[in-house]
Amino acid sequence: MISELWWERDDLLYENKTLMFAGKSVQNLAETFQTPSFFYSAKRINENINRLNSALSKTGLDHKIYYAMKANRHVPVLTYMKTTGLCGIDACSPNEVLLALSCGFTPSEISYTATSVSNADIDFLSLHPDLIINCDSISMIKRLGQKCPGRRIGIRINPAMGTGYGSVDVLRYSGEKTTKFGIYKEQFDEALHVAEKYNLLVKRIHFHTGCGYLTLQLDVWQKILEECLWFIKKIDGIDTVNLGGGLGVPHTAYDKAIDLDQWSNIIKKVFADQNISIEVEPGDYIIKDSGMLLLEVNTVEVKKDTTFVGVNGGFNLAVEPFFYSLPCEPVACVIGDAKENIFKKDSLNNVTIAGNINEALDVWIENHPLPEIAEGDFLAMINAGGYAASMSSNHCMRGAVKEFLLM
Amino acid sequence: MISELWWERDDLLYENKTLMFAGKSVQNLAETFQTPSFFYSAKRINENINRLNSALSKTGLDHKIYYAMKANRHVPVLTYMKTTGLCGIDACSPNEVLLALSCGFTPSEISYTATSVSNADIDFLSLHPDLIINCDSISMIKRLGQKCPGRRIGIRINPAMGTGYGSVDVLRYSGEKTTKFGIYKEQFDEALHVAEKYNLLVKRIHFHTGCGYLTLQLDVWQKILEECLWFIKKIDGIDTVNLGGGLGVPHTAYDKAIDLDQWSNIIKKVFADQNISIEVEPGDYIIKDSGMLLLEVNTVEVKKDTTFVGVNGGFNLAVEPFFYSLPCEPVACVIGDAKENIFKKDSLNNVTIAGNINEALDVWIENHPLPEIAEGDFLAMINAGGYAASMSSNHCMRGAVKEFLLM
Repeated sequence: MISELWWERDDLLYENKTLMFAGKSVQNLAETFQTPSFFYSAKRINENINRLNSALSKTGLDHKIYYAMKANRHVPVLTYMKTTGLCGIDACSPNEVLLALSCGFTPSEISYTATSVSNADIDFLSLHPDLIINCDSISMIKRLGQKCPGRRIGIRINPAMGTGYGSVDVLRYSGEKTTKFGIYKEQFDEALHVAEKYNLLVKRIHFHTGCGYLTLQLDVWQKILEECLWFIKKIDGIDTVNLGGGLGVPHTAYDKAIDLDQWSNIIKKVFADQNISIEVEPGDYIIKDSGMLLLEVNTVEVKKDTTFVGVNGGFNLAVEPFFYSLPCEPVACVIGDAKENIFKKDSLNNVTIAGNINEALDVWIENHPLPEIAEGDFLAMINAGGYAASMSSNHCMRGAVKEFLLM
Repeated sequence: MISELWWERDDLLYENKTLMFAGKSVQNLAETFQTPSFFYSAKRINENINRLNSALSKTGLDHKIYYAMKANRHVPVLTYMKTTGLCGIDACSPNEVLLALSCGFTPSEISYTATSVSNADIDFLSLHPDLIINCDSISMIKRLGQKCPGRRIGIRINPAMGTGYGSVDVLRYSGEKTTKFGIYKEQFDEALHVAEKYNLLVKRIHFHTGCGYLTLQLDVWQKILEECLWFIKKIDGIDTVNLGGGLGVPHTAYDKAIDLDQWSNIIKKVFADQNISIEVEPGDYIIKDSGMLLLEVNTVEVKKDTTFVGVNGGFNLAVEPFFYSLPCEPVACVIGDAKENIFKKDSLNNVTIAGNINEALDVWIENHPLPEIAEGDFLAMINAGGYAASMSSNHCMRGAVKEFLLM
């Protein structure tokens, strides 16, 4: 018998029989703001940023956090982050840069790292000389150098080692298989040579090795950091290492939150003698558990041998549970009996939660134990803050969804 | 040695050294309309609809085609289809119905089949009494009956057998595993009972068993049709069977176009004695090979051991090659030497085509043989007419894409 709900914390928990999020009744949010809607907690965002900042401070190194806005670009969220004074923005397209600027970030607070960069993108970058740029290919170094000789740049490297959410191959950014990202050892001398030819000042290396590493993956992560010393030694006057993003959050009862003390100790151990600043680019770590998607149950029905719970939102609103095996845990907004019953197997039903998109894959979760659910109830899909709304589509014209920042 | 390009046809072929589509130079389209852009051929859409209509005519049964607009809802495409006079619309959400109406279709030309249907959806359906409705659950039958007693309906059934694009499990709509779609034998009597209770007139059964079946799958498809006779016999006065969509198109050199004679013979054989009309709901079959996505090559570079060709569009514009293993074949818009060289292995290079989204999975195709490609060249991703633009997202704010119907 389970004795606690793995996801409960001080701003997401049952009080009596009602799920509370950011100090508000989730049932009430669903009724008054209507569904489908995303809700984000400013308090949780702030806590996540501060926790990460404290861990970085323990390294004794200069450090900077750039929030990866591709995870969630809801304008109030970005603007609120700016007000914390603790993070800049990791952008990967001209439009992302413009949106960050529109939310009050300055060019020098925006780190730009993109892939398959076009000449139109480079023309855009040339308009913003204070933007921090990491080059992902020799082709980009050459074309940027031709357009902006003398500019300070970073080089995205590929250490040919990777880690991330355990089983999710598609989220590996580097590893045994050659990926499109960054410059490998084999081509690094040429990259530096091309940069020199165009008088670009290489002052930084950048790498990103996978999404969603937790404590279990920190051993591999340390090896990746050590591997990057090879690149650091190649560059005279390097002053910054950008460790990318990838810090994960728990998605199920079987995951544990990443041990940030261990994480910062590794950074300290590897880079203590290097006289460099550290940059990180978290997305999920800051925003994923700060958000939830509220849906209404419209159908409860046994089909053949399976109890289906149909809801008014599908995979077009949050692709990760469907394509990346990263579930959004469904949580009942109101529990009928005493809270204790939620831990008792025989007071739960195994249900399959299905979205409203006409595709067979549009199933949120299969055979998941939930308290009794009826048509008209609401479900909170937690951990829907990252890579959900920002990747959503209007497939089947079911894309109308609202987003709210709760302050 | 290959002696022909599997995808060439009279409106998509090389003339001299230039790829022609719908009578136009693709290179010229890319230069003048700019990339990324989708192009759709009205002529090909018309041919596909007419070919299917002819095949249905050979069954000797009354028949109707409803185009599944979730495959592609570009307004000029929908409007053009209406002008053919040969097809209605398969819609699956209120907004799809409204868009179809806005393009000139009448309610009686629109077949509505959805899943996880909400009360708000049912309220909408009640405003359009001439809309053709198929009910996917007993819950929907009950709620629709309460709102619109006496209405004529179809019941979506689930024959518990399925087929479709060979290896793509996620596209199975019915089969051994219980899916959310339709009503199984086990619950069919109850469904009819609930319909009767609310005076709904059940006149049609509907099923859809998977996406992308070709000739090889027709044996299984025939068994599915035979299975649905069990349901037909249960309904007094049934007058229509909707066979759903799912007719596939070739995606690679290894696929062959579906044999429509064999297809229509099966329909004739199974339903000849049933005194019913036949409806079909194709999406891909009509639109997929009518469309292409034009992209510009911005990066050509060896990384470690792999030649990457970076383009200015990624998986957010066309998810199927990335998540469904249904490739869009990349085709060079101009071939440098004589056309014959395109068939010679040693004049081709194996390249990996990567998009501009910062995710490792954003690779269009790996180790694909292409004529020499340079930065600034354009690539046509063929078979991008279906489930591409309609499912596209603004991930990384790279969603700006134009769509053009070529008349």
